[in-house]
Amino acid sequence: MGRLDEVGIIRILQKALGNAKFAPEDVESFRINDKKIVAKVDTLVQSTDMPSKMTVRDAARKSIVACVSDFAAKGARPRYGMVSLNLPEGVSRQEVRQIAQGIKQASEEFGVRILGGDTNEGKEFVFQACVFGAAKKVVPRKGAKPGELVFVSGPFGHVAAGLEILERGRRAGPRFRTDAVKAFARPRPRLGFALKNGKYFTSSMDSSDGLAVTLNEMARQSKCRFVVSSIPANDGLEEFARLNEMGVEELVFHGGEEYEFAFTVPERHRAAIQKNARLTGTPVLEIGRVEKGRGVFIEKNDGLYRLRDSGWRHFKK
Amino acid sequence: MGRLDEVGIIRILQKALGNAKFAPEDVESFRINDKKIVAKVDTLVQSTDMPSKMTVRDAARKSIVACVSDFAAKGARPRYGMVSLNLPEGVSRQEVRQIAQGIKQASEEFGVRILGGDTNEGKEFVFQACVFGAAKKVVPRKGAKPGELVFVSGPFGHVAAGLEILERGRRAGPRFRTDAVKAFARPRPRLGFALKNGKYFTSSMDSSDGLAVTLNEMARQSKCRFVVSSIPANDGLEEFARLNEMGVEELVFHGGEEYEFAFTVPERHRAAIQKNARLTGTPVLEIGRVEKGRGVFIEKNDGLYRLRDSGWRHFKK
Repeated sequence: MGRLDEVGIIRILQKALGNAKFAPEDVESFRINDKKIVAKVDTLVQSTDMPSKMTVRDAARKSIVACVSDFAAKGARPRYGMVSLNLPEGVSRQEVRQIAQGIKQASEEFGVRILGGDTNEGKEFVFQACVFGAAKKVVPRKGAKPGELVFVSGPFGHVAAGLEILERGRRAGPRFRTDAVKAFARPRPRLGFALKNGKYFTSSMDSSDGLAVTLNEMARQSKCRFVVSSIPANDGLEEFARLNEMGVEELVFHGGEEYEFAFTVPERHRAAIQKNARLTGTPVLEIGRVEKGRGVFIEKNDGLYRLRDSGWRHFKK
Repeated sequence: MGRLDEVGIIRILQKALGNAKFAPEDVESFRINDKKIVAKVDTLVQSTDMPSKMTVRDAARKSIVACVSDFAAKGARPRYGMVSLNLPEGVSRQEVRQIAQGIKQASEEFGVRILGGDTNEGKEFVFQACVFGAAKKVVPRKGAKPGELVFVSGPFGHVAAGLEILERGRRAGPRFRTDAVKAFARPRPRLGFALKNGKYFTSSMDSSDGLAVTLNEMARQSKCRFVVSSIPANDGLEEFARLNEMGVEELVFHGGEEYEFAFTVPERHRAAIQKNARLTGTPVLEIGRVEKGRGVFIEKNDGLYRLRDSGWRHFKK
């Protein structure tokens, strides 16, 4: 019997807790009287999620941003947040100030009012954010239909490259290096674009477990096949991959912590999506189409190749 | 310059985050359209909050119960919860099952529907709960007026005694030992009583930082003096204190993690409170009265003694 991994843990929790969902949607939503409330928690743990070069300021900001990203993926506006901090013994004033700055920055960037939270002493830094909002519609992961188009909110692979640079000293040009490290340490979800265009989405999902996992989950829940005909990588990433003898597809599809999202749209809305992407300066990319069938495939010159359903997972190192 | 303690940490956070509250109320509330939403986060950290003899099941349950206790203190009904878990590498199936059982137990006891959450790998167990509800009225900490009565939802001191028994091997009779350890490991907030009687409360506050801190905070925010004429200790506690040569007042007022609450009520509602306490089997105790002035005092035969504003605090060991 192997080690207990995240999927195993979630299975045990779900079995015991019946209806509770420990993964299948990006956000939780519930009704209080007539209002649909949307909520999301996210946790950054020092030993797991913070490379030694990541600042506490960026980590504090990112705990909120990770929730914002899920709201963006669902076309819902985040409005209020609470933050719970574990701080190690001997934390300095300077570190606490940096943490506060990171929280404030996320609050201002995305219009999330921080209501409060709590502080605890622990063995390591843990940043836990809980973000709420209200929405008329929460775009589901299931909902894609054959004939529709598949989009992503931006190019992929930068975060995986950034982690390779930070953790393994991979080589990169100065410009790409900056972009890649920033993509990891200071992600910026496409909230503006998402709020304007969520009405067109038939299905959508945050990509923080890796694009391959996202597309496979959407295809599975929608009971359709997704065919990717254009790989969402930009020139910089291809150069980085060449320089370090890494596969572009590995970086694009099997990374993680990328706060972009994938979505499907009926073909008649293609022009609206493209126009709004230009207006909001969002590097949206059309990557393929939805077909009858199952699974996710990459279309190459000589045929279709199955995109394996694996990405970055906790408990799998 | 001393160590940075919790008060210092909160001060830094508050300064940077302006409106955000990192302590002054039991719950956060916000409006979404016309609804008042109430929310609370609470975190249990293994190295700080879990004596070695505490089970993960009880800890998981308690993270939710701590939030429920704050809802009870404010007369608000908790309805939905999310749980975020940090699990150490090598966590066993048995432990995860126990955690799930603890969450389920809290959910059933207090009618909190668990929507989901997330799991993370970390250096130690961390149980973080976020609970939501809606309320017409949230009883504030300020609001007590001279002439009103001060009540607590049950006797105090058991949790401090339970910790002394668990951590320092203090002596106790078998019955008291069981009660005290249970009060610490499996607290049961008086939610039913609170929901029925919150309409009478003019001010109220959870007592998880210790009863002295609670009463001082309520008096300060209400700009009144609280005079305690009856110390809320039962016979068992007095015997335990004698046996171990400890002070009853120290145990009652300066403990912590006691999921009871204090509240003030106009005298005309005394009979209703007493009747509802009987009907719900809640050991509510009238402990004193609100007067003009400032501070909290204990009334003894020979005069008034100031109750110092200190209790149990993180970061102060």
